[in-house]
This record gives sequence, C-alpha cells and structure tokens, in this order.
Amino acid sequence: MALFIERGYDEVTVADIAERAGLTKRSFFNHYADKREVVFCGLDGFQAMVLDMLADADPGLGPLDAAVAALTRAGEVMTADYPEFTRARQDLIDSSPELRERDLMKTAAVTSALAAALADRGASPRAAAFAAQVAATVFTTAVAEWARQPELGFGATVQQALRDMRAVLAADHQPQPA
Amino acid sequence: MALFIERGYDEVTVADIAERAGLTKRSFFNHYADKREVVFCGLDGFQAMVLDMLADADPGLGPLDAAVAALTRAGEVMTADYPEFTRARQDLIDSSPELRERDLMKTAAVTSALAAALADRGASPRAAAFAAQVAATVFTTAVAEWARQPELGFGATVQQALRDMRAVLAADHQPQPA
Repeated sequence: MALFIERGYDEVTVADIAERAGLTKRSFFNHYADKREVVFCGLDGFQAMVLDMLADADPGLGPLDAAVAALTRAGEVMTADYPEFTRARQDLIDSSPELRERDLMKTAAVTSALAAALADRGASPRAAAFAAQVAATVFTTAVAEWARQPELGFGATVQQALRDMRAVLAADHQPQPA
Repeated sequence: MALFIERGYDEVTVADIAERAGLTKRSFFNHYADKREVVFCGLDGFQAMVLDMLADADPGLGPLDAAVAALTRAGEVMTADYPEFTRARQDLIDSSPELRERDLMKTAAVTSALAAALADRGASPRAAAFAAQVAATVFTTAVAEWARQPELGFGATVQQALRDMRAVLAADHQPQPA
C-alpha cells in the first residue's frame, strides 16, 4: 500500500511490490492473484468480523438495523485501528477504474455473505437481500465520507447516512391523489 | 445469444460467434471488446431509454419513485419486445461468474447515469445516489423474478419488489425503547 501511495497505483508493478516485501514474483503470486488483490487483502478478515458482529447483534433488531449495526461495529474497528490504511485505500480506489471494478466485486461478495447470515437469522430471502444491499450502500457511502471528514466519527457518519437513506424512501411514500 | 443458449456460454468461442454472424474475428473485435460484451450489447440503448423515460416522468415524483417509474417503463419495453432475449440473458448471467461480474459493472454504470440525471432533476447528490441505488436493486430483483415467473407482468413485479423494499426499511424504523 505504501508503494501505491508513494508512486500512484498505475506506476507500481508486481515486481516492485514483491521487492519491497522481500518476495520473489513467484511467491507474490502464491499470495495474491494479481496487483489489485493487494489493495483488498484485509477484506476476508473484515467479512468475518462483520458476520461475528451480526451474531452478537440484539436479536430484536430487524434485518436492516442488524446489518447496519454489524457493519458499523466492524467499520469502527477498521477506522480506529487502521485509519491511514482505510483513508489511503479509499483514495486509491477513487483514483483507479480498475480498482473501482474490483471494489464493486468485493463489496458484492461481502453483501451476499451478509444477506445469507440475515436469512439464517430469520429474515425472508428477499428482505435479507434488500437489507444487506441497503446496508452496504449506507456503509460504503459512510466510509467515503469519513475518509474526507473524519471529525464526526465513523458511527455518527453511518447513522446520518442511514437517516438520509430512510428519508429518500419515506419522502416518496405519500398516498397518491386519486 | 442463440449460440450461447445452444451450447452454453463457456463452450462458445469468439471464432464461433464471428462465424455465425458472418464476421471475421478481427471485425468481431471492432464491434465488441470481448465475448462478454455480446451479452450486454443492447445496454447502451437501454440506458438512453431509462434517461428518456425519466425526463418524461411526473415532475411531482420524488427521486425514488421517479427512478423506479423510469426503470419500469424501460423494463416494460424490454420485456414486451424482447421477452426471450431478456429471459435467456438472465439465465446466462446466472450461469457464469464472469458474466455476473460484467453485469455488476454494467448495472453500476447505468446506476451512476441515473443518479446524475436525478441530481439534474433537483435531488441532492446523496439522495440521488441512494434513490438510484435502491431503484436499481428493486429493478434487477424484479427482472430476475419476472424471468422465472412472467405471469404477474413486469410492472406489477416491480411494484411488489418496491413495496417489499419499503417494508424492510420501515419495519426497522421503530422508536427505540429508552
């Protein structure tokens, strides 16, 4: 990650990364499928943490609040323990279409895992999928905003995004004139 | 598309497609970046149609209802004029991780264009992004369901999905006990 930030993502080769990490190119490819994977290396751990947090969530919460609570707690750990990494990763993703594509795929994988866990918790498959999708949108919006403006704190940034999301759905939900 | 359905997506090569279409491999690559693009070939037209439908939407509609209305009208055209293509395309995407990845990217591009158009229509950037994202989730859910069960009709399938989405957001929105 430090290399990407120093030189820009497009300028760094796999050979550069391997050299910095003291690896041969061959052992690099034992660890990562390609250069893009380096940016997403903590993500399997993040997904596991989200599922752990969900297992600990108040059983009385509906699927959306449970999903947001789990993502918020995992995000608070991530932003508190790795603030520079999280911010640098966000800047990198914003800077590269290739990384935005990979980020979409990775987010979709975490969203599917979260939907499956919400269904195990008792939500219908459709409610679980919708709740996971909305929670993921709220979360990624909050991470991007936190990276620009960390002062509010990550949890409050998520809550504001969730309120805004609910307002978008509720504002339209007026009885139609006959 | 017919070739993919006859033989399965993984079994068809670019040479097969070019031969069936009476093209050389070289002129195939003048038309499409790769094999995956063939499956998504009508999508630029679809996006243009969604934006046209949005321009025609009732100015009194909030961003979410306007986005859903535009996607519904474009989807009604697609499912009425190309029912077999739409169903076959859905089956293909469901059958291939490579196509699911491309579909995610294409959907993200249409969602961004829709968000930009909603912002031009007066929504805040955040409300526009949230409304476009939720509308896209509702729409893709409805297309998948319509492909399995067309009897209800596409418009009604979208409306049911939108009601379910609103229920997921509303169900959680109870005042918390003090």
